Amino acid sequence: MSAVGFALLGHGFMGAAHSRALHSLRAMTPATRPQLVSVCGRDPVAVEAFAERYGWQAGLTDWHEQVADERAAVFDNAAPNHMHLEPTIAAIRTGRHVLCEKPLGRSATEARRLWLEADRAGVVHMCAFNLRFLPAVRLAHDLLATGELGEPTHFRGRFLASSALRDDQRRTWRFRRSDAGSGAVGDLGSHLVDLARYLVDEPVTASAFTATFVGERDGATVDVDDAFSAVVGFDGGAIGTLEASRAAGRRSNELSFEIDGTRGSLSFRIDRLNELELITERKHSRRIDVTDPSHPLLELWWPEPGHAIGWGASFVHELRHLIAAICDGGSVRPHGADFEDGYRCAEVCDAILRAAESGQREAVEYRQLPVTARGTAP
Amino acid sequence: MSAVGFALLGHGFMGAAHSRALHSLRAMTPATRPQLVSVCGRDPVAVEAFAERYGWQAGLTDWHEQVADERAAVFDNAAPNHMHLEPTIAAIRTGRHVLCEKPLGRSATEARRLWLEADRAGVVHMCAFNLRFLPAVRLAHDLLATGELGEPTHFRGRFLASSALRDDQRRTWRFRRSDAGSGAVGDLGSHLVDLARYLVDEPVTASAFTATFVGERDGATVDVDDAFSAVVGFDGGAIGTLEASRAAGRRSNELSFEIDGTRGSLSFRIDRLNELELITERKHSRRIDVTDPSHPLLELWWPEPGHAIGWGASFVHELRHLIAAICDGGSVRPHGADFEDGYRCAEVCDAILRAAESGQREAVEYRQLPVTARGTAP
Amino acid sequence: MSAVGFALLGHGFMGAAHSRALHSLRAMTPATRPQLVSVCGRDPVAVEAFAERYGWQAGLTDWHEQVADERAAVFDNAAPNHMHLEPTIAAIRTGRHVLCEKPLGRSATEARRLWLEADRAGVVHMCAFNLRFLPAVRLAHDLLATGELGEPTHFRGRFLASSALRDDQRRTWRFRRSDAGSGAVGDLGSHLVDLARYLVDEPVTASAFTATFVGERDGATVDVDDAFSAVVGFDGGAIGTLEASRAAGRRSNELSFEIDGTRGSLSFRIDRLNELELITERKHSRRIDVTDPSHPLLELWWPEPGHAIGWGASFVHELRHLIAAICDGGSVRPHGADFEDGYRCAEVCDAILRAAESGQREAVEYRQLPVTARGTAP
Amino acid sequence: MSAVGFALLGHGFMGAAHSRALHSLRAMTPATRPQLVSVCGRDPVAVEAFAERYGWQAGLTDWHEQVADERAAVFDNAAPNHMHLEPTIAAIRTGRHVLCEKPLGRSATEARRLWLEADRAGVVHMCAFNLRFLPAVRLAHDLLATGELGEPTHFRGRFLASSALRDDQRRTWRFRRSDAGSGAVGDLGSHLVDLARYLVDEPVTASAFTATFVGERDGATVDVDDAFSAVVGFDGGAIGTLEASRAAGRRSNELSFEIDGTRGSLSFRIDRLNELELITERKHSRRIDVTDPSHPLLELWWPEPGHAIGWGASFVHELRHLIAAICDGGSVRPHGADFEDGYRCAEVCDAILRAAESGQREAVEYRQLPVTARGTAP
Repeated sequence: MSAVGFALLGHGFMGAAHSRALHSLRAMTPATRPQLVSVCGRDPVAVEAFAERYGWQAGLTDWHEQVADERAAVFDNAAPNHMHLEPTIAAIRTGRHVLCEKPLGRSATEARRLWLEADRAGVVHMCAFNLRFLPAVRLAHDLLATGELGEPTHFRGRFLASSALRDDQRRTWRFRRSDAGSGAVGDLGSHLVDLARYLVDEPVTASAFTATFVGERDGATVDVDDAFSAVVGFDGGAIGTLEASRAAGRRSNELSFEIDGTRGSLSFRIDRLNELELITERKHSRRIDVTDPSHPLLELWWPEPGHAIGWGASFVHELRHLIAAICDGGSVRPHGADFEDGYRCAEVCDAILRAAESGQREAVEYRQLPVTARGTAP
Repeated sequence: MSAVGFALLGHGFMGAAHSRALHSLRAMTPATRPQLVSVCGRDPVAVEAFAERYGWQAGLTDWHEQVADERAAVFDNAAPNHMHLEPTIAAIRTGRHVLCEKPLGRSATEARRLWLEADRAGVVHMCAFNLRFLPAVRLAHDLLATGELGEPTHFRGRFLASSALRDDQRRTWRFRRSDAGSGAVGDLGSHLVDLARYLVDEPVTASAFTATFVGERDGATVDVDDAFSAVVGFDGGAIGTLEASRAAGRRSNELSFEIDGTRGSLSFRIDRLNELELITERKHSRRIDVTDPSHPLLELWWPEPGHAIGWGASFVHELRHLIAAICDGGSVRPHGADFEDGYRCAEVCDAILRAAESGQREAVEYRQLPVTARGTAP
Repeated sequence: MSAVGFALLGHGFMGAAHSRALHSLRAMTPATRPQLVSVCGRDPVAVEAFAERYGWQAGLTDWHEQVADERAAVFDNAAPNHMHLEPTIAAIRTGRHVLCEKPLGRSATEARRLWLEADRAGVVHMCAFNLRFLPAVRLAHDLLATGELGEPTHFRGRFLASSALRDDQRRTWRFRRSDAGSGAVGDLGSHLVDLARYLVDEPVTASAFTATFVGERDGATVDVDDAFSAVVGFDGGAIGTLEASRAAGRRSNELSFEIDGTRGSLSFRIDRLNELELITERKHSRRIDVTDPSHPLLELWWPEPGHAIGWGASFVHELRHLIAAICDGGSVRPHGADFEDGYRCAEVCDAILRAAESGQREAVEYRQLPVTARGTAP
Repeated sequence: MSAVGFALLGHGFMGAAHSRALHSLRAMTPATRPQLVSVCGRDPVAVEAFAERYGWQAGLTDWHEQVADERAAVFDNAAPNHMHLEPTIAAIRTGRHVLCEKPLGRSATEARRLWLEADRAGVVHMCAFNLRFLPAVRLAHDLLATGELGEPTHFRGRFLASSALRDDQRRTWRFRRSDAGSGAVGDLGSHLVDLARYLVDEPVTASAFTATFVGERDGATVDVDDAFSAVVGFDGGAIGTLEASRAAGRRSNELSFEIDGTRGSLSFRIDRLNELELITERKHSRRIDVTDPSHPLLELWWPEPGHAIGWGASFVHELRHLIAAICDGGSVRPHGADFEDGYRCAEVCDAILRAAESGQREAVEYRQLPVTARGTAP
């Protein structure tokens, strides 16, 4: 395959992130250089400007045109949550491979429908949990997978922001349950849940509190959470805390996690994304700078260590991984999250919301696909 | 008052910490220079060696001798948890002022009895939550009290150790419910609960998980928790997570907390106890080195900033505070924890244990003293 | 101007850095989207592979073809030091705008010739001191320029590597005076000198030590320095230390600097390039995360703070700055280094080498261009 | 020996530090519990208050009384620099063991006289370079001594303060050459020189700049340096930079050093004095928290790691070391600095001052004692 065409739905923050990553990839993967076929959005002027700036061949306002376009092997859905379901299913049904931003659906039910469709159609499917593609996160995964830290006992994940505390913060779609599904749980918490699943184990129970600190915006009730705090039990016996907030002081997108095992611990914080902290001896804390070319994913970049990569690189790695899966006829697992991962993450988020509502410890209800569904697309 | 006599029960880690602090105080408070009257423990040889090393005038093996000794204004209980109740009540009843190590009792019921007795007797009473007396913690308190961070929205407290993972770790009293009351909850978690109460607000509800990773030691069942993770709701609407573990990799006594409010955030970690991190502007993180003599508690120390104090200083400050309260005929509040604080902390710990057992969100059941009890000692 | 063509000489580390930056720029500057016209190197197979990987339209082996190619407005010299002089002068004489990697020449004499030629020809000229284009460095510049830190009193610059200590390290051109001019002084130290000049002031005197720890490689004498330590006096009275080494333990490209003024201090280290540390109050250290879109250069990137950029972004900013200077018919100053800056830096490096040799404090001998030279190209 | 008596000259900052350390020692070394015999100073009221506060048995105003007092085995000179020579020699001649604050003399000549006298008298002598007695510094020493970092190639030492920039800073004795000998060189720089000598090697050459940023105070000329920057060559071939300033922004007593060797590097900063950073693998930085009881000097303190000690502990360790040397009839070397170390340090400081004056690289002129002098006291 000499090139892989992309059709992008959405031209907001994530649309820009994906566009830039595709350009960076053009300087890295000559054999499968991505083509920027079309971008789609509701506002024709804004779409046109975006297409011009980022070099998309066409700017469209109707996503139906995209899903039928044979030049685009990939339908890349970077639109708001309520625009995930219908266009992505349409694209799957016309044989596109699909990449969908997180959270996969507004609920586990939606997410499961997407998984079912993609699985049945046999296309490559990926849920855009880009943090899996940071080198320090990959290193964390490898250290846990090889038993370097022993058996996991604790996971702590935090994603702290303050967007709900800004005076000028309007009631955008992110503050409406009908559009977003939930608040901090789905938007920020889903990243933490995915990291917990990728790095540690499957959460099986959850207790939680949610809070909505600003109850009304633009004269209307806010019906989603501004923040949540949850404790989870993992399948293998570890316990953990998950917490996300849009009402944390002046913090801006501060994601961090820590994992303890029976033989060691590690810590990561996204503002120092080129570093992983490791504790495997008493009172020795090792800061590993992952810019050394020997680290996974770094082979793409510079010949000498000491040259930090940025957050945007996570998208470069993610899209490269997707393209490789497509070209190899395979799946994005284990390092990429597919729609099953998107679904399982949604079940944990739903259990957290149920637990906050009921005041009870809730079981996470993972459901399998019907056996007959797999690979049965016409 | 020209001097304040101390009788110390217990000569373990805490006994040493209190002894050293008393010697340091002798070089700081000439008017009320403490006297080291007697130390008491079960093993006569060990007590004698301890008395010799730390300069106690007498080494005893029967605490009943101490509680009757008029030369000691203060009965300082640094013994294991199951030795808190009886000797402390006896000392109260003979008119000693009392300092008792945390947790105050093995249960809220025990702690409440101690509070009731001390309150009725009208003596000065203090529960040794020494971390309140670190300058950075005091600064955190002052910043929150003056509204610098706005209304609190989140508290996160962690106390991570690995003592339960050491191969040679025997089933000491800390692993027996009859002696300790609980495991990580009472031993480590009580510090977090006290800090949450001192700095933020009263917890009123809790959901929690506990875990015992090593179920048997020395051939006997471990009937306390190795670790817990809890979410709590505060009276004013903030939510928080509390977590303590004796099974966290290779970590050694790593206590840390973070508080977010509507206008700012702060962080503290005990391995850098001379620092407080403050975030009151977007993407500006301010590290305040509290060694400047203008900081509270620092006036005792050095004339120039840049001269770190150690963990042991918390005991110097705590004991100085207690002596001042005794000499002034007052109470240790607000900066010191008294037996009411020790009791209220115990109620939160009990609620966490109940919630872990029931799988339900549990209310914290604070009870007042009977009105007639206060100040009614003969 | 709808596009700006580039001809690149050299396809090593810097060639890759420039190529990737040009691709990133294509997703950022639609009006002046750069064109990758040709790349040139000695080895035809390697050049071809590089051209294919990075999407250059042609791969050449004779730079004379490049300097005559009208499609390339810019001649970008990313070749080793001994290849800076002749091709760059040839490109200037055919009217190319020129970008040349640092150090500009192997000596101040060479650097001055390049400056003289570029100045006389009236082309836009830039010496690739890319670190000026990191947002944290720009912020440092702005804080100093506005007097936030008072009058500068001290500069400390360090660039520490260990390449000369690796067992397999051959005697490449970097270890030969005839090819490189000097060792750590020109390769690493030139960055420090440029930062000192950009941020603080002109160095006017220097005392120095150099050291060559491994005197022989591949059977031949190493005739350049492995390391140097220098003290410099600045024009306005500040004093400073500069130090670079290829023999510093296991360090890899650790550049850092600190500046003290009469009212405050700042610190920067390249492994945390999205941060600047600022001290303007006693014992308050402020870590500024420069990912906020309000910081200079960040407007190009993401709409939300908290999204780190990488080292490669310095080249994106640098090349964008060069293109803007060309399109505006202006110069790259003050934020870009031009050939005069490249020359003045070389004079400081030469003074350091002279001082190490003589054991005396040496004056830096800045020379002006002859008055008649400026803008007199045919 | 059941107790060791101390006579203290000086009751300023250092007098307080020594007094507190003696009290702490009383709770640590029962066999050789120090006695606080007398303190001496010019102002009778201040001396009396100091004696009362710190528990000294007598407060004197004439040091001649102290040197003749048989109850004091140790004469502890914590007075300003110009009061080091005469009283210390008098004490030596009456057979006192001597501890003298740094710098030992106002010049190498003075320091050599003190060394000569102490050596001839055969008393135990110690120059109070207390930083050698921080556990992290001891660990650095041990790592270098065992070759863990290979052969040293670089030393960088910094001691940054801003006392000379405070508006209210008067022309105290520290700003007068006749009293202090020099400015930042002797006061701050001497610590760096001693650390370089203790940890790395003997400096043998120096080039330097000094600066006096505020030339006049209280209407009189300041005739000492506010700051210096020096490069030094070590006997074994390493090179280094030393820098101290009283005019560094808002910095307060920020001492730090870094050492690189052929196999690794280490860093220390005094505001985090319980930590040592170590780099022995590419891009792995190891932060060692030295509170583990297995570290040297920590056996005195707590049974569990994670309990930070303070800056004051350096004096506790130093005085304990001195007492042990006295009781064992030995010397304070290798971990303590004796008067020979005080002298050799002074020679380096003098060479730095000469080099700053001459603009030339100056040799450090270490002189031995006359052979006949050693141990020849009556």
